[in-house]
Formats: sequence, C-alpha cells, structure tokens
Amino acid sequence: MIKNLILKNRSYRRFNQKVTIELHTLRELVDLARLSSSANNLQPLKYILSCDRRKNALIFPNLAWAGYLKDWQGPDEGERPSAYIIILRDMEISKSFGCDHGIAAQNILLGATEKGLGGCMIGSIKRQRLRKILDIPPRYKILLVLALGEPKEKVVIETARSDEDIKYWRDNDGVHHVPKRLLDDIIVG
Amino acid sequence: MIKNLILKNRSYRRFNQKVTIELHTLRELVDLARLSSSANNLQPLKYILSCDRRKNALIFPNLAWAGYLKDWQGPDEGERPSAYIIILRDMEISKSFGCDHGIAAQNILLGATEKGLGGCMIGSIKRQRLRKILDIPPRYKILLVLALGEPKEKVVIETARSDEDIKYWRDNDGVHHVPKRLLDDIIVG
Repeated sequence: MIKNLILKNRSYRRFNQKVTIELHTLRELVDLARLSSSANNLQPLKYILSCDRRKNALIFPNLAWAGYLKDWQGPDEGERPSAYIIILRDMEISKSFGCDHGIAAQNILLGATEKGLGGCMIGSIKRQRLRKILDIPPRYKILLVLALGEPKEKVVIETARSDEDIKYWRDNDGVHHVPKRLLDDIIVG
Repeated sequence: MIKNLILKNRSYRRFNQKVTIELHTLRELVDLARLSSSANNLQPLKYILSCDRRKNALIFPNLAWAGYLKDWQGPDEGERPSAYIIILRDMEISKSFGCDHGIAAQNILLGATEKGLGGCMIGSIKRQRLRKILDIPPRYKILLVLALGEPKEKVVIETARSDEDIKYWRDNDGVHHVPKRLLDDIIVG
C-alpha cells in the first residue's frame, strides 16, 4: 500500500552514519525521478550524487537543519547522512518555476524508504558556497539537497490544531513530533 | 515495488468517463498529500474536490491539454475526467514559492494509480475564469488542477536522444509516446 510507504517516509535528520549507501543505489533512486512527470516533459532536472566520506564532508556544512529546533545545529558526527542527492535545474533547458523537483524528491524518498533508508529534503542551503566547493557550473540552479541514510530517530505525526501549532518539536526522549493539519481543514471546496 | 507504481503512473488525458469516482476516494487521495513533507511544515496547500457532472463541466473548459499535440483540443465528451482535485496555496499561510504541490500531486497520482485510476497534472489553467466560476477567494492561489479518471489510453516511455527530442507525440493508433532523457544524461556529478 502506497499509504504505508508514505507514512513510513518521514523527514529524518539523524542517521546511522556507519551504514554506507552505494552509488548504484543513488542511481536507482534518481531513475525513479527520471520516470515521472515533468512540466511540458522538458525534464530540466539534473543531479549530483555523493556517497563517499570526502564529498559528503564538503556538502554537510552548507546545509541548515530543522529551523524550529533552535538549540540543535544539526546531526553530530556519527549521525550524519551517508549520502546526498543534489537536485539542480538546468537553466539552459528551463528557467521557469515549477514543481518538478517536488515530484522528483518525493519519488526518491519513497524509493529510499522502500529500501529501509530515509532522508530529508533540505531547501535551506548556502548555495554560493556549495556551488563553489563542488564547482557547480552557473547553468545549474541549486534547488534542493536530499540527505539520505539509515534513519536513527523516531518521528511521529500529530494533529495541528491551529496555524500556530504547526512547528515540529523534539521531546526529552529525542522523539520528533510533527503536527499535521486535519483533512477537513485543508479541503475547502 | 514503488518503481512499478511509478512506471504505471503515466500522465493520462483520456478516460472512461462512465466510471465515476466517489468523494471519499478523493478525500483518501488528499490524505496522502496531507501526510507528506511541507517546507517548514507550514502546510499551505488547500484542496477543492470535484466529482459530480455539473462541477466537472464547470472546470473542464478552463484547462489546456497536451500543448505539443497541436491538432488535439483535449478529450471529447465520454473521455473526459471523472473527477478533479484543484491544488491551491493559502497565501495567508505562505506566499513563497516551493515544491509542496509537486510532492502532494505525486502522492495523489500514485495513490490514484494504485486504485486503478490515473490522471494528469495540469498547470496550464485559465486561472481567472476558474476562480470566478468556482468562487475561489483571493487568499488562495491556484497552483495545479489534477484531472482524474480511469485511463483509456496507452502511454509508452521512450528515450530522448537530444534536447529537441523531448516532445511527446501520439501515433496513428492513438498510443501516446513520451521520450525521457537517459539516466547518464541527467546525472552530472
């Protein structure tokens, strides 16, 4: 059931860093993105893959983690992602805004979840620094970084009772709580 | 396997219009969207559902179909969608661009595919007219219309050999061909 996979696919930010991810696994995940919809079928998305320690270490400092957890600066060594997929838009193919990267990222994370992995879509990125350190040509706009690994935290869904109640939080046992709006609050017609 | 579901989930534009879709099915599909990632967990997406003939008939004339098929103006009566899910962004929650609607739309279409249905994400919309006819308040920005039904066409994936080769096309037997870029052409690092 796709619903079970969607429920299992939470945003994970702490991982068993010892568990490595192979390049062919990342390629399989990108293939899931490749096979899905793209506005006007233009397929402007391009991907940078990383699963070795050196490249991962270059990417990690350029990501911001869990904005609502003010006392937490991101995963410690040992709990960091084992791999990354950077989603780019090739501006020579399309300059327009769209949601292709949402479709692609969701496919990749659903595929990762099925493999016992998990991850997080990160949009808060030090883009200029990441571009420089990975030597990303100007034709590619950096859209998202997907952090991937074997999840090492528990995430639970709760009910958001108001607009002020949507901030995720972490309890004393390290469980991550995510308030979601009710179905009747999001269907408006 | 999620890959099988992703492969089965093509963009369908012709349907068995006689096959109706119930409101509770649309609600189940939106629930799949509700349970997934949202930037900063803000959850700005709201939804309008349609599965009755009268409302469907109001929505249909405001959609543009398959831009590359110049000789085809969209599905004829009898092959039109049985239902629609209109994805809105509530501007009082978030004004920023993002890809939440891509994530949501993909979940909905994967869920529809699992149910033996299928559909198409439509971004080419006569937005002002649709807003007026459905009386959509200004706080909601119209992002996408998902057309849904029981697919009545065959869609095949092919290989795009160049940037010029990405236009989908329909052959004399009505089969819809969609050229996708090769994996090695989209992984750039």
